Amino acid sequence: MTVTVTAGESREAISSEELTVWRMLQRAQVRITRVLETDLLVEHDLALASYDVLTQLSESPDRRLRMNDLADRVLLSRSGLTRLVDRLQRDGLVEREACASDARGLFAVLTDDGAVRLAEATPTYLRGIRAHFLDVLDAGELRQCAAMLNKLFPAPAGEELPA
Amino acid sequence: MTVTVTAGESREAISSEELTVWRMLQRAQVRITRVLETDLLVEHDLALASYDVLTQLSESPDRRLRMNDLADRVLLSRSGLTRLVDRLQRDGLVEREACASDARGLFAVLTDDGAVRLAEATPTYLRGIRAHFLDVLDAGELRQCAAMLNKLFPAPAGEELPA
Repeated sequence: MTVTVTAGESREAISSEELTVWRMLQRAQVRITRVLETDLLVEHDLALASYDVLTQLSESPDRRLRMNDLADRVLLSRSGLTRLVDRLQRDGLVEREACASDARGLFAVLTDDGAVRLAEATPTYLRGIRAHFLDVLDAGELRQCAAMLNKLFPAPAGEELPA
Repeated sequence: MTVTVTAGESREAISSEELTVWRMLQRAQVRITRVLETDLLVEHDLALASYDVLTQLSESPDRRLRMNDLADRVLLSRSGLTRLVDRLQRDGLVEREACASDARGLFAVLTDDGAVRLAEATPTYLRGIRAHFLDVLDAGELRQCAAMLNKLFPAPAGEELPA
């Protein structure tokens, strides 16, 4: 089966094999995300997005980031992040702080309780990545995977893989 | 930098290279999803999840699926799908139908308007996959990608790739 695409003046066919690779990629990502999230929820009552927020804050100077920068890093919309930080603040894991030198600036800051919860949850998260991703692929496949991802979306500065 | 994981009795290290591959994979999936969704929203006022629902229905016998089966195929929670189908029904793209022979059964059915909207949006969707995924990788890389995805998550029956 071949799907024919008419796009402006050009016609290009997408084979069913190509479409299948794409659908497999979508499914793989959703499934691995679900598996990781289930473990984090069951063992630590943390959603995956919450885990990502705590991780990004813990890796930042003074454990704080501007809300806009944090939204970029965890790949959430600004409104989605606002709701998530509301919840994390209610749970005592994150605080908001105004920036003294910048009226526009609003920071999210990791609390000590947030740091403890993150440290507790990290072994679960890393065990999940190992079991469902890293251990399934061999070293050569991981290198192939990294090379393809680098072609698809060049890594941000500071996160390039060694060649 | 090496992150050390303590998981039960075993200790396993995850290298920063491994963690980076994982983070790249997460980002690649989110970014490509965003790019595809933006095109679909701008050109056809369709969210990506809506496009997926219309596609699954159009590929099913009599253009209909039980809500539970549809939720599995588009990888949404049952409650998330219910809200999405509410919206698609308001827009006239999908109808709900009770199943005569099965009191538990509730179907989602693609309407003629839904089929037309799907047909209009499909070139945009396929053009996006081609530009941001298929054309970036060469044929060998696509085969590597498929092989890795098959290892990570074996494809459902009927969607296996030819060897």
